[in-house]
Amino acid sequence: MRTENEYREIVNRALEPQLRSLGDVPGKLMDAMLYSLLAGGKRLRPVLLLAFCEMAGGDLAEALPFACALEMIHTYSLIHDDLPGMDNDELRRGRPTNHIQFGEGLAILAGDGLLNSAFEICLRTSIEKDISNGLRATEILARHAGVTGMIAGQVKDVTLEGHKPTEESVTYIHTHKTSDLLQAPIEMGLCLAGASDDVIECGRQYGLHLGFAFQIRDDILDVTGDPSLLGKNIGMDQDKQTWVALRGLEQAEKDAEQHAQFAIEALKPMPWDHSFFDQIALANLNRKQ
Amino acid sequence: MRTENEYREIVNRALEPQLRSLGDVPGKLMDAMLYSLLAGGKRLRPVLLLAFCEMAGGDLAEALPFACALEMIHTYSLIHDDLPGMDNDELRRGRPTNHIQFGEGLAILAGDGLLNSAFEICLRTSIEKDISNGLRATEILARHAGVTGMIAGQVKDVTLEGHKPTEESVTYIHTHKTSDLLQAPIEMGLCLAGASDDVIECGRQYGLHLGFAFQIRDDILDVTGDPSLLGKNIGMDQDKQTWVALRGLEQAEKDAEQHAQFAIEALKPMPWDHSFFDQIALANLNRKQ
Repeated sequence: MRTENEYREIVNRALEPQLRSLGDVPGKLMDAMLYSLLAGGKRLRPVLLLAFCEMAGGDLAEALPFACALEMIHTYSLIHDDLPGMDNDELRRGRPTNHIQFGEGLAILAGDGLLNSAFEICLRTSIEKDISNGLRATEILARHAGVTGMIAGQVKDVTLEGHKPTEESVTYIHTHKTSDLLQAPIEMGLCLAGASDDVIECGRQYGLHLGFAFQIRDDILDVTGDPSLLGKNIGMDQDKQTWVALRGLEQAEKDAEQHAQFAIEALKPMPWDHSFFDQIALANLNRKQ
Repeated sequence: MRTENEYREIVNRALEPQLRSLGDVPGKLMDAMLYSLLAGGKRLRPVLLLAFCEMAGGDLAEALPFACALEMIHTYSLIHDDLPGMDNDELRRGRPTNHIQFGEGLAILAGDGLLNSAFEICLRTSIEKDISNGLRATEILARHAGVTGMIAGQVKDVTLEGHKPTEESVTYIHTHKTSDLLQAPIEMGLCLAGASDDVIECGRQYGLHLGFAFQIRDDILDVTGDPSLLGKNIGMDQDKQTWVALRGLEQAEKDAEQHAQFAIEALKPMPWDHSFFDQIALANLNRKQ
């Protein structure tokens, strides 16, 4: 099995060529899309896709365009999330947000472009490489990213801003805004590798709890984090539905730990060495960025 | 062959059920998406998809979800186009635009939701109904709607606002912003019906010229139209790259007529009665809305 760093490097090298492979894109649009797509970050979602696919015996080269597509979906959601009409953030990963750099109109279109390109890349790859489960993997992406998945979470996040958080509302937002887009790569990677439904269900559970552990850690860092390490301002989520607002800091730390344990537990029935994924769940508990 | 009105009614009845079939969508998001999706309009794109599919011997029930998906793409592009960061329009089809009605955040997400749902519906339909050319038809949609298609046209439209129009720039914008999304339904409908590449190429040419004829007519109506019939304000495109700005009103009328003739000419090699589509091209020349 490769290391997390190796997977990350494979993704980082593939993102720009995948986007450019679509053909003749207006220069300013390509610049705006690449500005956010290549801004770095953990690449957690594409790394999960590639690693789950390889663990289950799938082909890395076949899976790579799908991994890049997923990072494009994640990136578009950040660009639109930062817009003045949404969270109105000016700083992301230590740099001006997309609309500060390129203007609001181009930022909206760069987001739309990355969303559309994600599907275009999955579909074209499925056809050109005749990937047997390509259609299914692309449908998984659409479902988790869509109006019953990530976008549903975003809508609740926006419309419940300023409302008192309840267990139900925060759970809904974390499930959809965060866990859905962590379940997507796991299910896609396993699906591309031809894994059984039972195995995919274990992966789904891991993704659900990993998503909670990650989002709770993000909520904690918005209160206690170091802006210079985070690359963004802290205290931005004061009116938001966060786990810290619901439970307090101390309990949030414990809950993150419990979700990490649930995630690790979920993988135990898998017939392969899953220590790679256990590590990801544990490392999250101490991350500073 | 059915009439244009019959096709339009079939589409109008199917749009909401298709969107609701995706599952448990937050109420406010569903409201915002349906507000624009059900605002009426000519339904030209889905009508073309169904009519070309049936002309070539395809199955209407199989094609209907794809037709609805295409209307979702068209609708999302209008919602985002109207945003303050883009054209900042307050009136569309005689009603407040989406962001005026629901606020900017929800309008951005309603647009994202319709874009994502279009692909989700095509993909799910292809899997559930085991449609042999479903993957290909969905890829055609992604390509024409994407960063080398409609979005490319939108970007040039936004970034060249206020610049002197040239034949090259206006042609680029009309080709991509308008013709691409008229070629998509034609190619998709024919592809779903299993038509040959030669036939699809005839359809592409028809769509290209129909797109020019339609956009030139829109440009003319922005100068000479009746706002109460159009359901939107006129004179909004004064700084835009329009055919009227490039050629003047009189020549624009002639050019629209010529493109209608080119469109009709393109269908002549087709082995079926294509008078339905000839009529669409001719009726456009006198439309008031």
